[in-house]
Amino acid sequence: MSDHSGTVTAPGSDAVKTQSPGGSSLEDLCINAVRVLSMDAVQKADSGHPGTPMALAPLAYLLWTRHLRYNPADPQWVNRDRFVLSAGHASMLLYSVLYLTGYDLSLDDLKQFRQWESKTPGHPEYDYTPGVETTTGPLGQGMGNAVGMAVAEAHMAATFNREQKIFDHFTWFIASDGDIMEGVSHESASFAGHLKLGRLIGFYDDNHITIEGDTALTFSDDSAARFTAYGWHVQNVPDINDLDAVEKAIENAKAETSRPSLIIVRSHIGYGSPHKLDTAEAHGSPLGAEEITLTKEALGYPSQEPFYVAPEALKYWRDAAAARAKAQKDWGKLYAKWKGANAGLAAELERRLRGDLPADWEAAIPVFTAKDGNVASRAASGIVINALAAKLPELMGGSADLASSTNTLMKGVPSFSSEDYAGRNFHFGIREHGMGSVMNGMALHGGIIPYGATFLIFSDYMRPPIRLASFMKRQVIYVFTHDSIGLGEDGPTHQPIEQLSALRAIPGITVIRPADASETAEAWRVALSHRDGPVALVLTRQKLSFVDRSQYGSAGGTARGAYVLADAKDGDPQVVLMSSGSEVSLILEAQKKLEAAGVRARAVSMPSHELFARQDEEYRDTVLPRGVRRISIEAAHPMSWYQWVGSDGVVLGIERFGSSAPAARLFTELGITVDRLVETATKLAGKK
Amino acid sequence: MSDHSGTVTAPGSDAVKTQSPGGSSLEDLCINAVRVLSMDAVQKADSGHPGTPMALAPLAYLLWTRHLRYNPADPQWVNRDRFVLSAGHASMLLYSVLYLTGYDLSLDDLKQFRQWESKTPGHPEYDYTPGVETTTGPLGQGMGNAVGMAVAEAHMAATFNREQKIFDHFTWFIASDGDIMEGVSHESASFAGHLKLGRLIGFYDDNHITIEGDTALTFSDDSAARFTAYGWHVQNVPDINDLDAVEKAIENAKAETSRPSLIIVRSHIGYGSPHKLDTAEAHGSPLGAEEITLTKEALGYPSQEPFYVAPEALKYWRDAAAARAKAQKDWGKLYAKWKGANAGLAAELERRLRGDLPADWEAAIPVFTAKDGNVASRAASGIVINALAAKLPELMGGSADLASSTNTLMKGVPSFSSEDYAGRNFHFGIREHGMGSVMNGMALHGGIIPYGATFLIFSDYMRPPIRLASFMKRQVIYVFTHDSIGLGEDGPTHQPIEQLSALRAIPGITVIRPADASETAEAWRVALSHRDGPVALVLTRQKLSFVDRSQYGSAGGTARGAYVLADAKDGDPQVVLMSSGSEVSLILEAQKKLEAAGVRARAVSMPSHELFARQDEEYRDTVLPRGVRRISIEAAHPMSWYQWVGSDGVVLGIERFGSSAPAARLFTELGITVDRLVETATKLAGKK
Repeated sequence: MSDHSGTVTAPGSDAVKTQSPGGSSLEDLCINAVRVLSMDAVQKADSGHPGTPMALAPLAYLLWTRHLRYNPADPQWVNRDRFVLSAGHASMLLYSVLYLTGYDLSLDDLKQFRQWESKTPGHPEYDYTPGVETTTGPLGQGMGNAVGMAVAEAHMAATFNREQKIFDHFTWFIASDGDIMEGVSHESASFAGHLKLGRLIGFYDDNHITIEGDTALTFSDDSAARFTAYGWHVQNVPDINDLDAVEKAIENAKAETSRPSLIIVRSHIGYGSPHKLDTAEAHGSPLGAEEITLTKEALGYPSQEPFYVAPEALKYWRDAAAARAKAQKDWGKLYAKWKGANAGLAAELERRLRGDLPADWEAAIPVFTAKDGNVASRAASGIVINALAAKLPELMGGSADLASSTNTLMKGVPSFSSEDYAGRNFHFGIREHGMGSVMNGMALHGGIIPYGATFLIFSDYMRPPIRLASFMKRQVIYVFTHDSIGLGEDGPTHQPIEQLSALRAIPGITVIRPADASETAEAWRVALSHRDGPVALVLTRQKLSFVDRSQYGSAGGTARGAYVLADAKDGDPQVVLMSSGSEVSLILEAQKKLEAAGVRARAVSMPSHELFARQDEEYRDTVLPRGVRRISIEAAHPMSWYQWVGSDGVVLGIERFGSSAPAARLFTELGITVDRLVETATKLAGKK
Repeated sequence: MSDHSGTVTAPGSDAVKTQSPGGSSLEDLCINAVRVLSMDAVQKADSGHPGTPMALAPLAYLLWTRHLRYNPADPQWVNRDRFVLSAGHASMLLYSVLYLTGYDLSLDDLKQFRQWESKTPGHPEYDYTPGVETTTGPLGQGMGNAVGMAVAEAHMAATFNREQKIFDHFTWFIASDGDIMEGVSHESASFAGHLKLGRLIGFYDDNHITIEGDTALTFSDDSAARFTAYGWHVQNVPDINDLDAVEKAIENAKAETSRPSLIIVRSHIGYGSPHKLDTAEAHGSPLGAEEITLTKEALGYPSQEPFYVAPEALKYWRDAAAARAKAQKDWGKLYAKWKGANAGLAAELERRLRGDLPADWEAAIPVFTAKDGNVASRAASGIVINALAAKLPELMGGSADLASSTNTLMKGVPSFSSEDYAGRNFHFGIREHGMGSVMNGMALHGGIIPYGATFLIFSDYMRPPIRLASFMKRQVIYVFTHDSIGLGEDGPTHQPIEQLSALRAIPGITVIRPADASETAEAWRVALSHRDGPVALVLTRQKLSFVDRSQYGSAGGTARGAYVLADAKDGDPQVVLMSSGSEVSLILEAQKKLEAAGVRARAVSMPSHELFARQDEEYRDTVLPRGVRRISIEAAHPMSWYQWVGSDGVVLGIERFGSSAPAARLFTELGITVDRLVETATKLAGKK
């Protein structure tokens, strides 16, 4: 593979002998401590993945004692190096190192590996264990997160660095065979290569083993050539236990700042284990007490006591961490100097890092009036983005090659590119999954509110990172347009049906489907204010009728998830009509017709099920009075509405795929019509 | 890029001048007919993508007049070449050619492009337009389908060819920049390269244009190097209008049968259009009447009349198609000879192609008894697969690197590999998305029932192909194991919550979550009998209590989606307890406790919402009697249950992410317990 490698330490070959596992130098003790803690913790939990931490221990040792800039006492230091264990199943590698370097993670915590509410869950969880930068486990996601963090670093550096480089950290990741095989690795690596993210350094743990056996069963890629094709700087290290070779490769990677680096390290799963070395068995099961004894013997480990770490090894790790932490002190001085020279900029940075929005940002949110006419919600969203662009420099994003269709371009703002990392318009390429995982990394880094756009149908391509944004409670904004059969002629492959329900089912997400331009502005207000989780804005391709708020309920109700738009004129409503988005105009029209026919109907706009569910019962009862029958209508699968409509109401939706035809025809053919609403409501009211 | 190319026709370079668009040879007329039909149809529909068909017309001309083996009169001929337009937005390319070659698609059909129920929807739809082999549009899927078709061809050839090669067709695809950027292209191309699928030939339409502008905005891959790294044979053709060069590349690709081939053809979007050539504008909008006039002039087209095709051009296309169709005649003779010599084999093949299962296949389905003890449904599924493996040679599949965890290996059956295409155990690699799209291709090919397995959580990685299997009504079986918090210590990143509801929301899919080994056997019976759509089997990691069917309802009820497992002893039930999968044991236990406490309860096993919804109302009412309050419990997001429980019942589920801990602890902490059921039911019954 050497022809693909910028700087190769030695030709890669399976034939290269690994060093004998035994050793009693201080270095061996330090490295073997990671192996021992990992296998002991997995054994105690009777569950987990010991083999990879054992294999990667030398790499972790080098990174945390010599290369990473971090401070265990301040895991939030903004210019720390970011480390992402994309191979999240190797969590004990990370936990071991976090303990050894002195993060707030004790030996007792390691002993509680994989137990209820312990600080050491099966896979690393962000905001839960100090020193864990992102939640990993679903393969490929961590690589994308790392790319996003490197994007964020590049942007923050380009924006805030002056004479002093207050942002200049590296982002590191370790990827497994699984990460490398997943499609999202293609999307994020291609994106990173294109952007020439020189401060991104990844390791590919090339251990030749997957769960089903040798990787040769299913994998023949020349990964070095593949990443070279993406524009990465690629090196091969034939033996991870050859510390000098690994060290040299890391130095090379740090020196190469014009391209991302991948270091392919040949490792041996279960290293040290006499019987499980290089076997799939070592991947996902405890080694067993007997094998652990033999392994400790083979490693020349000084004690058989579970979780034993030699005091001199612990001291070495802690001293090394203290030395690494000095970087923060030096940086602190640099930062003070920078702040002294750039007071306004510093105030701005500190605001962004706190996650505060500018005091008067809401004044910039546009107010839509009758003069604006009928506006598609995607277009209204574009107007809001542009109105806020100057006010909110932390807002940055783009689309998966649908800028003009999703109306997500900030006009007059430069594009983020390898020539201009200060740019804020992103061109994610036709890479929805990568976009999602990169946005997570950007949001995790701090200082940035990322948004990403595609058609709602393609939210299916990016569900894994949407789920992780929800789980990590990160502020990521999705702009999903072309949200129903209303997109028309592109047909069933592009018409979302089940996507709305499928998104609403994700715990922690907030989905908002505004009914007109005014609700769209309010949806953006919610999305930008909502710091602790992702918000999906679901927007139309087609124009929406302007709702005159002097006659109808205020769009401010959007923030409460549902509100009364129009009420029965004389007395309590006999029926409640509920809807979201483009179908709200149908319930308004139906309400009028029903009133004319003597049926007292209330029209409720319900742009967000999640926001409504978060209101107190009293408010909910005022919007949806108990005992009044309800009808919902949405041009989507009905599943998510049954909870709100109840069994004595009627849920109108679409339980089939769409069709290729002009939109108006589709609404008629698929029964999303005023007539059907009127007919259904009349029946319901009559029965009452 | 020449160093990556096996046989290069000329060095690729953007500087190469394209030929002048004008031309009046018969060849020009034939090629320009495709361009004209495409731009006219898009113009008439006022919607669509004219630019790519115009660019690719020369390639289509060469393929359909000189290379593809097909018969417009018999689009189902089993040994026809398969052609997949992965760039589905260029549908007018395909429709134009299908018309020109004489498929059952008229000029009037082309004029109805993108209209309600026309045969020419916005994107190609399988089983709707003759000659369309798969539904495409969502980018990257078609490439995966093509890989699956090539897999199927290789397998059918290895299984059925004798002295006569009755299977030896090629599979062709055309991919766009978008296909190539999508992650699924990495998964399927890596898989195809590993398998050395030499009869797979793809074209990468390298037009340098995406919706946002020049591909250079976001894309710097050396795609030739990338595909070479996957083990593909790669060629560059610098100008698609250089027919000799394209022809030579195709000949090379056909001759290279030990590797899949990719031909990178530099094309020019909107070719022929004076003002829209090479612009993003030509991609997704009609050219406009004026520009069409100018384009026809520039092309030297003999008429400005919309949809005009010169009679001599149409004759040339039809004659060429007739000549290509002779291949079927020759094949017919070959087949007759083969059949004469291999009567038993022929009967078997014809059975498989008809989609019939062997008459006595169901006798092989195992019956589980108390002696089998408590069995995880994944384990029961593995037993069923193995019991059926010999009986159903068309059943083939595997997992995304989780064979032992998902119990999907057929013991004693060879693996499908480049050394043995007759193998039936698949090693899909850590490529869930690719697995899904490859399975679709296998199912589309005919003769095969594919299954693919992964953890339920990773169904999120493959929703696009699941959706397409549903839309195309193809028999694809998903084996999704580790189906809830019951997987325990791997934690929230691996514990499905919203996945069940999200799958159930897909129109046309059948999701079955069996409660014990017996229901698992019945679920497989349903899955194998269900020819017109995908079935997802949702299975546990943990053991499930054996349900003694002599005391409880028969597992045969599985096929009806829901059935009474245990009924109130004295009189009508006061409350109905409903559940699926691992939580059915909870309702059985609760039912006993309630009976003991004097509450008459019915326990309903509801393994499949979709199957139950397909029953008549009468049956549904016998299972869920009207007026009796219902409680459902499932260790998953509750969304999909509200429809069945109604607003006067109670839905017990999980609306948060899981946690890393032993499974038993999780069920208790998250409230999926018998106690909660008993308490809730007692209240409900009391209120009544």
